[in-house]
Amino acid sequence: MSSIPRDPANDYTEASAQRRRLFIQQQTGQSLQHVGHYSQPIEELPGNVENFTGVAQIPIGFAGPLTLHGEHASGQFYVPMATSEGTLVASYSRGMRLTREAGGITTTVLDDAMQRAPVFRFADARKAQAFGRWVETHFEDIKRAAESTTSVGKLRNIEQYAVAKLRWLRFNFSTGDAAGQNMVTKATREACQWILSNNIDGLEHFALAANLDTDKKHSHLNTLHSRGKRVVAEATIPAEMLKHTLHISPQALFEQRQYSNMGAIVSGAVSNGAHFANGITALFIACGQDVANVAESASGFTYSEIKPNGDYYFSVTIPSLIVATYGGGTGLATARECLGALDCYGQGKALKFAEIVAATVLCGELSLAAAIVADEWVSSHDHYGRNRP
Amino acid sequence: MSSIPRDPANDYTEASAQRRRLFIQQQTGQSLQHVGHYSQPIEELPGNVENFTGVAQIPIGFAGPLTLHGEHASGQFYVPMATSEGTLVASYSRGMRLTREAGGITTTVLDDAMQRAPVFRFADARKAQAFGRWVETHFEDIKRAAESTTSVGKLRNIEQYAVAKLRWLRFNFSTGDAAGQNMVTKATREACQWILSNNIDGLEHFALAANLDTDKKHSHLNTLHSRGKRVVAEATIPAEMLKHTLHISPQALFEQRQYSNMGAIVSGAVSNGAHFANGITALFIACGQDVANVAESASGFTYSEIKPNGDYYFSVTIPSLIVATYGGGTGLATARECLGALDCYGQGKALKFAEIVAATVLCGELSLAAAIVADEWVSSHDHYGRNRP
Amino acid sequence: MSSIPRDPANDYTEASAQRRRLFIQQQTGQSLQHVGHYSQPIEELPGNVENFTGVAQIPIGFAGPLTLHGEHASGQFYVPMATSEGTLVASYSRGMRLTREAGGITTTVLDDAMQRAPVFRFADARKAQAFGRWVETHFEDIKRAAESTTSVGKLRNIEQYAVAKLRWLRFNFSTGDAAGQNMVTKATREACQWILSNNIDGLEHFALAANLDTDKKHSHLNTLHSRGKRVVAEATIPAEMLKHTLHISPQALFEQRQYSNMGAIVSGAVSNGAHFANGITALFIACGQDVANVAESASGFTYSEIKPNGDYYFSVTIPSLIVATYGGGTGLATARECLGALDCYGQGKALKFAEIVAATVLCGELSLAAAIVADEWVSSHDHYGRNRP
Amino acid sequence: MSSIPRDPANDYTEASAQRRRLFIQQQTGQSLQHVGHYSQPIEELPGNVENFTGVAQIPIGFAGPLTLHGEHASGQFYVPMATSEGTLVASYSRGMRLTREAGGITTTVLDDAMQRAPVFRFADARKAQAFGRWVETHFEDIKRAAESTTSVGKLRNIEQYAVAKLRWLRFNFSTGDAAGQNMVTKATREACQWILSNNIDGLEHFALAANLDTDKKHSHLNTLHSRGKRVVAEATIPAEMLKHTLHISPQALFEQRQYSNMGAIVSGAVSNGAHFANGITALFIACGQDVANVAESASGFTYSEIKPNGDYYFSVTIPSLIVATYGGGTGLATARECLGALDCYGQGKALKFAEIVAATVLCGELSLAAAIVADEWVSSHDHYGRNRP
Repeated sequence: MSSIPRDPANDYTEASAQRRRLFIQQQTGQSLQHVGHYSQPIEELPGNVENFTGVAQIPIGFAGPLTLHGEHASGQFYVPMATSEGTLVASYSRGMRLTREAGGITTTVLDDAMQRAPVFRFADARKAQAFGRWVETHFEDIKRAAESTTSVGKLRNIEQYAVAKLRWLRFNFSTGDAAGQNMVTKATREACQWILSNNIDGLEHFALAANLDTDKKHSHLNTLHSRGKRVVAEATIPAEMLKHTLHISPQALFEQRQYSNMGAIVSGAVSNGAHFANGITALFIACGQDVANVAESASGFTYSEIKPNGDYYFSVTIPSLIVATYGGGTGLATARECLGALDCYGQGKALKFAEIVAATVLCGELSLAAAIVADEWVSSHDHYGRNRP
Repeated sequence: MSSIPRDPANDYTEASAQRRRLFIQQQTGQSLQHVGHYSQPIEELPGNVENFTGVAQIPIGFAGPLTLHGEHASGQFYVPMATSEGTLVASYSRGMRLTREAGGITTTVLDDAMQRAPVFRFADARKAQAFGRWVETHFEDIKRAAESTTSVGKLRNIEQYAVAKLRWLRFNFSTGDAAGQNMVTKATREACQWILSNNIDGLEHFALAANLDTDKKHSHLNTLHSRGKRVVAEATIPAEMLKHTLHISPQALFEQRQYSNMGAIVSGAVSNGAHFANGITALFIACGQDVANVAESASGFTYSEIKPNGDYYFSVTIPSLIVATYGGGTGLATARECLGALDCYGQGKALKFAEIVAATVLCGELSLAAAIVADEWVSSHDHYGRNRP
Repeated sequence: MSSIPRDPANDYTEASAQRRRLFIQQQTGQSLQHVGHYSQPIEELPGNVENFTGVAQIPIGFAGPLTLHGEHASGQFYVPMATSEGTLVASYSRGMRLTREAGGITTTVLDDAMQRAPVFRFADARKAQAFGRWVETHFEDIKRAAESTTSVGKLRNIEQYAVAKLRWLRFNFSTGDAAGQNMVTKATREACQWILSNNIDGLEHFALAANLDTDKKHSHLNTLHSRGKRVVAEATIPAEMLKHTLHISPQALFEQRQYSNMGAIVSGAVSNGAHFANGITALFIACGQDVANVAESASGFTYSEIKPNGDYYFSVTIPSLIVATYGGGTGLATARECLGALDCYGQGKALKFAEIVAATVLCGELSLAAAIVADEWVSSHDHYGRNRP
Repeated sequence: MSSIPRDPANDYTEASAQRRRLFIQQQTGQSLQHVGHYSQPIEELPGNVENFTGVAQIPIGFAGPLTLHGEHASGQFYVPMATSEGTLVASYSRGMRLTREAGGITTTVLDDAMQRAPVFRFADARKAQAFGRWVETHFEDIKRAAESTTSVGKLRNIEQYAVAKLRWLRFNFSTGDAAGQNMVTKATREACQWILSNNIDGLEHFALAANLDTDKKHSHLNTLHSRGKRVVAEATIPAEMLKHTLHISPQALFEQRQYSNMGAIVSGAVSNGAHFANGITALFIACGQDVANVAESASGFTYSEIKPNGDYYFSVTIPSLIVATYGGGTGLATARECLGALDCYGQGKALKFAEIVAATVLCGELSLAAAIVADEWVSSHDHYGRNRP
């Protein structure tokens, strides 16, 4: 079997891409005609992908307008959602219409940090404990070493977690408008190199990561202490409007929430929400995010109340929302346009984008919950997804 | 603020899409030139997206060849990965090379079912218990009702979960080559309509879903009892080869696994693996999967051993892998090509595709773990992701 | 340092016990006068303790009467609670008074089984899968082998859980009125010996237990599939009565439940209840239960509703309640009396006792929640626990 | 049905206790002869129990000596274990012998605090966030208010957890040698009263507790951030000694640990240990602890290594060990003697006692794991528990 062809001199050319498409066709019999159809400039791709061969064309529908009263995002937004799941854009749009008519969604960013958590193994727990104290007293030195590798990242604090002779340091960085995983990995490595240069008493082993961060997967630790952005979106919907737009009462929606809370508790779910993942994923694909972060970003909380006047207060809290408006895939041709349509491309926009994501999630939660309660769930999918098996 | 323009007569035309692109440009000042560049036939999009406006162009790199000895997938595969994260394709390719040289990866599908879990509320727990028994004795009737809505889905069994006066029925369907969420929702609704027509004693309330399924989010229930496919990928790597290709010893890799297991336990992570999400997401985007399912599919287990002869046995188990080779986005232009390059498009291919996904995940786990242990993690990102902040 | 004295001929004599008390006094300077004061006949202690030296005297207060409408326990009960925590008996008594006045508590046993879960390791996942099928087809043989060791235990079914090349078999036994841990360990070992005698293809290793059971600790698996008894207790309290006895409204209690649900979800708690452990522990100590099972038995669910007429429906569900009325410590002198006072000693009483435990837990949940809501929590502890720091 | 008799003037008399015993006998037909046999002075019981009627006599066996090199506990200890489970004392003794011969156990207390976590509900998340900042800037005032209620408790710090418009404050107190739950409840209430007196902007509701503490139940939050004492016990056992005393090799024990880690992960267990609960419960009953805390204290971690020279390093970490040597039940007659035998009664002894508990747990873990690996588990129970069903 042959190796995938690469051009060691410069692999980021249309010639290289085409050579690979032909290679795949020869090997598998499958032409890559549509994969080869793109306007993304290849010369912008180094740092984003290896063995570039073409693109996946993921359909985008715009939903909205979404009305927001955030600290960072305020006004009306048309939200680009890349998906192949029928009903999704329609359902989020319905939630956006409802919240818009109700006066809009309030969003608040509660926290913002990116982590890397190296582990240090000592001769015994007491040496590990002594190291923990040493880290506290040498925080400024560690910070200096860490920040020497980046002009953007700032080391905010270091949490410590201890089991037996192991001690994890959870480094919390602010990373500006980048998601920052690579930035903090590099900075943490540098910090650890400095630590290791100090002949730490009783140190037996060091590893730059060991599943406590926890990168690319949900953890309760990140739920408690945030990873990326911790964002809340809230809306209060008048009872009459809920009835009119979603065909249900606040009481019925609140009652359904009780069952959903119990269902989440019983099943051991990472979220008591319905489908945070749908909205987040569609926005992430459209906007050049690292979509694998859906694994972390899609967990969270919903909390609702019936207000004394009968209106329905509803909220979503996303404790580990990892977004970027700079770096990574944000500069790709279509991503840049989608971020641009939200005025979220580039520096100083990450918190704004995080608020838009959270507000979008809220709209989807309201719409799906209502569809279940009103028994419109199946019929709407029959309508919008009609040609599917 | 204006509404997004739609054409009630037929919204799936280039004219409609263009009208929306212009509308977004007018409203936001952002042109959607690249979003508007696609070869995906619009007339195929009903059922996949509403308000179609264009596409996200997500770069695809091929990795491989991947050598597989599965029950459903066997031979060599070139794996399309859609991503904007530098190093990813290179890292998975490295793992594929290693496992290929080691003789390939064995894959096994352990389970295959899709769920919907309605909840029934009764006057008290005893009525709920009686209902549970009634369901058992009327399984054939329930199955008949459920299957009346689908030519593909088959009701395999119904699990029951009880809290207080609530009783969830977890319907397990086989769904052929579709992911099947909508199929089982519709079938379960029909089954429940039949149940409700029987004047169940003490029944107070019914909801078609209440977070026990658990759709679009990880749950421990699904980890235990599978959702979609439960797949294992296994490989045994000779010690010498590990040293040569990944620059580490089996002992060092195994030791790192110990820390990673503890890190996952301490942090309350949903997976003791490193980054299942990366490979799954890249394959999902390329191959027209419902990418939001990453939220469920990315959790799982790694398990490793040092064999008596010193070789390294490594495995990944994915208990909730939701994939399709038919329906949903699998028929989209680029998805169809990517699935085609794996010979995974259409009927009878879902288990094959599941095995390829699991094997790909294994390669990524090996490669990343080795990079951490060999202290090549930062340097490889510096190399492949060099122009990133 | 000296060894604790034992009499190899017969260590269960007052002389041996006294020799040990003197030994401890000589070694530590601490007399064991009160420890040496007991009426428990020593000759009954083999099988319950080694190195018997005396007793812990744990104060018992009776609470009640508790009014029950169970399937197994019906009528009025005076509940013995062994505790040293002031306020506890008073608080449970308050809940018992309230539920008694409200017409009593309904209890229902939903499940009853005890587990042992051996693990089998195979050459690969496919061998493990084949073994799983073999187990299904040989269930009757396995059952015969298991039941050959016990006149009481019956093997009900075997669940299977699979990761990589590992396969756990979760044996479910009915164990009559014994808790049954030792019974099922012995029976499962015998069943596994029979399995191992069949030259299972590809089997590499076997262990009789490996933390999946999960004995003496909470697990989500046991929450889903029960361990010991799964019991529900339910009561509906008229609004007026709630106001009069607990000084709160149903609305306030229900609202507090919302916060408690969220608190449990956020903290990752194993129960959304308040303090199941208090009532269970006090009953367990008084009634000769294996008190270490509190670690498993104290987790569970509360679920409540405001009824259309404004009354308050409240329930507790205990999914892993491990109790016995025969064997273990149930025959000890004071345990036998306490069980006897509940008419729960001996054969045919385990489900009755389980219902009394669940009903007691419900009373404590109502009382504590009300104390928090009515801001009487601190003042009641000041009153009943007044001489404590 | 009659009420349990009480004497409003002074209920803590032998006459009252006897009257209740007679009452129970009249109502149930069960004499309480053994329950009525005790030497515990009744006049010491106010604050420990209401409706005192007699005692549970729980058999105590001493295990040991246990050899310890703690920071607070050092030397040899004879450990009182109150239990009715045959084999338990023998098994822990076996582990104590092994670790003694191996040179003893090292213990380290990593953390020490008791919590109460009130929740505050605001008009929206932004008000809640502002409140969070206000709390930070008013910490000294809050501390002053809290500490005004206690001469012992000191407010160390306040953690904050945020969901939607809810904000929990997790108050961490040092509580000297008391377990401190009531102390911190009272102090936190006082602190909150002061907070509430400040007309906090947007505050809608306050509750002194809402399941985030999390009292009397395990939570992942407490595992991460400790509750009560966080203690580690460690020992290194020479391979030869392991072979001689427990009849197994380090390799076999380490391999079993791998399965147990996986079993815990798969089952969603709160501990990867085997049976922390057994040793903790037996010590708690003997030593007048609040035994309901077993629900929290019994979860934890084991971590092991095979050292380069082939010896076996083994450890247990208990993150939420709640113990007291003063207050609560520690002053009861038999508890005081048992604590005294450990030189752990009274002021300045809580950390010492915590170390003894952790070391005891380690011995039980080693012994049980070895019994499983050596296939002596069933036979030892047959031997020690021979007269049980």
